[in-house]
Amino acid sequence: MSDNQQNELHPMRHSLAHIMAAAVTTIWPEAKLGVGPVVENGFYYDVDIPDVAISEDDFKKIEKAMYKVINKDESFVQSNKPIVEALQWAKDAKQPYKEELLNDLKRAGTTVAKDLSAEEMGTLTDAEGSKLDEVGFYTNGDFTDLCRGPHVESTGKVGAFKLMRVAGAYWRGNEKNPQMQRLYGVAFETKEELKEYLQMLEEAKKRDHRKLGKELDLFFISEDVGAGLPLMMPKGETIKDLLMRYMRQEEKTRGYQYVSTPVLTQEKLYERSGHAQFYAEDMYSTAEDEEGNKFYLKPMNCPHNHMIYERMVESYKDLPLRLSEHAGLYRYELSGTLTGLIRMRGPITQNDSHVYVTNDQLRDELKDLMEFFAEVYATFDFKDYWYRVSLPDFSKDKYGGDEKAWRHAAKVITDVLDEIGAEYVTEEGEAAFYGPKIDVQTRNVLGKEDSIATMQIDILVPSEARMNLVYKNADNQDEHPIIIHKSIMGAFERFMGFLLEQTAGHFPFWLAPEQVRILTINDSVLDYVSEVKEVLSGIVLMKPLKYNELRYELDDRSESLGKKIREASKQKVPLMLIIGERDKQDRTVSVRTSEGESTIKLEELQDFVQSL
Amino acid sequence: MSDNQQNELHPMRHSLAHIMAAAVTTIWPEAKLGVGPVVENGFYYDVDIPDVAISEDDFKKIEKAMYKVINKDESFVQSNKPIVEALQWAKDAKQPYKEELLNDLKRAGTTVAKDLSAEEMGTLTDAEGSKLDEVGFYTNGDFTDLCRGPHVESTGKVGAFKLMRVAGAYWRGNEKNPQMQRLYGVAFETKEELKEYLQMLEEAKKRDHRKLGKELDLFFISEDVGAGLPLMMPKGETIKDLLMRYMRQEEKTRGYQYVSTPVLTQEKLYERSGHAQFYAEDMYSTAEDEEGNKFYLKPMNCPHNHMIYERMVESYKDLPLRLSEHAGLYRYELSGTLTGLIRMRGPITQNDSHVYVTNDQLRDELKDLMEFFAEVYATFDFKDYWYRVSLPDFSKDKYGGDEKAWRHAAKVITDVLDEIGAEYVTEEGEAAFYGPKIDVQTRNVLGKEDSIATMQIDILVPSEARMNLVYKNADNQDEHPIIIHKSIMGAFERFMGFLLEQTAGHFPFWLAPEQVRILTINDSVLDYVSEVKEVLSGIVLMKPLKYNELRYELDDRSESLGKKIREASKQKVPLMLIIGERDKQDRTVSVRTSEGESTIKLEELQDFVQSL
Repeated sequence: MSDNQQNELHPMRHSLAHIMAAAVTTIWPEAKLGVGPVVENGFYYDVDIPDVAISEDDFKKIEKAMYKVINKDESFVQSNKPIVEALQWAKDAKQPYKEELLNDLKRAGTTVAKDLSAEEMGTLTDAEGSKLDEVGFYTNGDFTDLCRGPHVESTGKVGAFKLMRVAGAYWRGNEKNPQMQRLYGVAFETKEELKEYLQMLEEAKKRDHRKLGKELDLFFISEDVGAGLPLMMPKGETIKDLLMRYMRQEEKTRGYQYVSTPVLTQEKLYERSGHAQFYAEDMYSTAEDEEGNKFYLKPMNCPHNHMIYERMVESYKDLPLRLSEHAGLYRYELSGTLTGLIRMRGPITQNDSHVYVTNDQLRDELKDLMEFFAEVYATFDFKDYWYRVSLPDFSKDKYGGDEKAWRHAAKVITDVLDEIGAEYVTEEGEAAFYGPKIDVQTRNVLGKEDSIATMQIDILVPSEARMNLVYKNADNQDEHPIIIHKSIMGAFERFMGFLLEQTAGHFPFWLAPEQVRILTINDSVLDYVSEVKEVLSGIVLMKPLKYNELRYELDDRSESLGKKIREASKQKVPLMLIIGERDKQDRTVSVRTSEGESTIKLEELQDFVQSL
Repeated sequence: MSDNQQNELHPMRHSLAHIMAAAVTTIWPEAKLGVGPVVENGFYYDVDIPDVAISEDDFKKIEKAMYKVINKDESFVQSNKPIVEALQWAKDAKQPYKEELLNDLKRAGTTVAKDLSAEEMGTLTDAEGSKLDEVGFYTNGDFTDLCRGPHVESTGKVGAFKLMRVAGAYWRGNEKNPQMQRLYGVAFETKEELKEYLQMLEEAKKRDHRKLGKELDLFFISEDVGAGLPLMMPKGETIKDLLMRYMRQEEKTRGYQYVSTPVLTQEKLYERSGHAQFYAEDMYSTAEDEEGNKFYLKPMNCPHNHMIYERMVESYKDLPLRLSEHAGLYRYELSGTLTGLIRMRGPITQNDSHVYVTNDQLRDELKDLMEFFAEVYATFDFKDYWYRVSLPDFSKDKYGGDEKAWRHAAKVITDVLDEIGAEYVTEEGEAAFYGPKIDVQTRNVLGKEDSIATMQIDILVPSEARMNLVYKNADNQDEHPIIIHKSIMGAFERFMGFLLEQTAGHFPFWLAPEQVRILTINDSVLDYVSEVKEVLSGIVLMKPLKYNELRYELDDRSESLGKKIREASKQKVPLMLIIGERDKQDRTVSVRTSEGESTIKLEELQDFVQSL
């Protein structure tokens, strides 16, 4: 849904918030109201009802009361009051939260409280945007609320809605304030749109990588180890390892050299790189050791790789230098923002590379890189992605390092993207302080835009202002290289999370932790099964990852075939080989995939598997 | 050299310490003497000379003064003094350190100061070992020292010696005390033995993995990142990766499943495992985050793997469960003990496995494991190793968990080692508190005993007293598994360090970071070189590591062939292919290895490489 469509729905959703508040006060007349804004796909209202804990069981009752208001089709009537009268209204209505808001407004004069919108405060402005001395109200039937509007004409014109959940929320987001109950609803213009949205939610829930991760025994998060710190079980580790091996293969072919450096790193390096100054809040730091050293856990590999540059590069003949590292990084994230493998504290195993080039090499390197990105995404059948180019606004932005290099880099990026015919959007004024960047954007299962990967051009860090990386040019003069920070897959854990949601757990065959399961009908076929296993053991896939030996299991329990098939399906094993008496006699196997079932000869099995 | 031989040399070495002290006081009469014990291969004496810093330039002078004493062949004369007289002697001789020692001895009554030996304190005992009220002295010529002896008969009988180095040392090892100068010498019975020892030192220096690591661009340690935290350059990383892939291959064949778990781990898990109580000093801990969580960096994988056991095991049918993890661990070690890759703070990439078995499975599993150890060491041509079995002394040791299980485990270990005819020593009373263990012992290049690897049987941790791991037995009753903690290579970094010293940098062919270098004689052969490269690109080694693609480089610089060969030799590239006009015409390559040089046909190249 576009932002525009969301805006059109705004008055309707806000009207539903008022209608919900009206319904709540009908059921619980003692309810104290907080604020009720519009949010993505719907609305909420914060309410405080002494001794009442609203549960989902109450939703029907509240919705019924809402339909009553809707069916009366009451007009939304706007009115203004001077602030002193407004305060009296709040007192009379026994609405202490509204009173607090109005008192703030009175004190603040022309400004609006920082934690609330003008809409919530009922703040009025004239046509030039100057604040007026009066505040706005909207009334429908018996219910009046402090509000700037706009609303729909009457309560009958609100479209389709559904209450979704209730959650605790501190008044004005401050944990020192009383806790209120936040009632959420979603709303769309038509019943069909609402139904579609609820179905999408249902589908997204099924594809939630946290749910699938558990069902497929891929990973888990434990209170003992900590939030945001997932443990990979054997099947999850298999996928992570295959992704890493694939990336290593692709990068090695393209001249990348792998390094590995410590996660624990003394403060000194981060003083040199500037992270201690700008990034300290996001880094884990240790207590001082007996010798007085303080360490950080590295949140990225950059400064370490730059130190290896210093040992490997003397002259322009040593460039481009392409370094890669697959290290487990750690970053402090607030626990509320953590989401399975998509947003974690660590180990964030970044598919991290640093390419050091001369000015002249930047164009070719970037073009090769864009092709590299496209090839990798094609491997995973990712099609719905585009590039977002963040450039500085040269007229006003501050940026570090040489301006000429910045202009050159900005031009090279757009030139290359044009040349390869890539789909991209440009954001001026959005560049990082160290250089322009290209993000790879896609949509997640909820249709929300998200970055998969990034490529940043760094002009500042190699300069004298930071790490002062140099090489001798052809005239034996010192020059600074340009650094391209690139990550095609982002973090392998996060990529695995994406893949899980995109494929609903049906990984591509080469990546499935268990690719094949042999299901026996009874024990009399076990000698023949040995022959089948021998064939499978000899199968090595060669693409996209070379030397990928087949992973298969045998289910020879004395359970019914139906049960065995159901279990293998649930575990999303892409290929089942069912073996019964008939197969043994005919030297065949019954193959079962998502495409269907068929019987093939044993000697065709290898080709069949290779074709998947 | 055996401990026995070392003991025979003890009086001679201790006499040399006295002779050195006598020489020092001849040259610097103001010298204050500390203590002068015997150490491995020699002796030292701590001296404090106001305003004099002894350097290696002074060694000749000191040695000359020592030979003077030796040539006089002065007798070592023993005498005793009551402690009060001894104190007067120290005062008269202006030896404040000796005075302090005697005062301590007086205060302590019958005990000896904790930081010094009876020998250093001149403490005398009678034949039954009871302490006497007098202290012992030895005199040679004008020099008298507090000493219990024994010494050689006279200064002429001291064999061959050499002063080696001088270093700062705090008096009695306490950094709050004055710093003294510690003069080290080595001594052997004959000049030949001394020469042999010095040659071995020279050889060891050449093989020092820190020196080789630098020369071969494998790794480096930087002040910015921190002591004990090496950075792997591309060649070092290549070796580490090959070792890890090899181990993964061998373990997967044997039914091990890989997992990966976070380094950063909340205190909670270590409270459950007991590490927070017993191991906290060796762990790095973080500052509390905003949410009040305190974390440790994991120093081992055990508790994390046990948590995966909990998710994977329900009944005895799920056992044995073999889990492996190659995680980078971190341990706090005092900076003075750090030694390149052999002793580091991290990342310690442990080749770590945990095998969970029932009592009945222990014997077979252990036997398979011993065979596994032997196979791996044979791959690396390690022959000089033996096992050290640490058992409890059942008569007095405290140990955690079920005694029956302990006795069973102890018996199984010795049974299995006997059965496979392994060489081993048994140490009673040396078991860990959680179970008996088997260490793999070898000698390093200095002939010193060192552990490569370890296998520990754990009866305590799975019990209710710790992590309470359970499975249902055939009668559906809860039982605790036995855990075998095993590491065949120890840490990969440390193993690499060992290999570097054992091979002096000449890694086995399959493991060499650069296996082949093509050296051109001039540019006219470059088209033919393309064909050679094509052959090399097609070569994949299959043992000991499968799918090991050949790593080769081309040196086509316009340098002399001599220079190119010297550089490749220095970088210990095992195979050089030298290509000139003649080779191009005849479609041959000149192959050069440590074995010599010969010319082979291009079509023989693949077989030749495979044979290395």
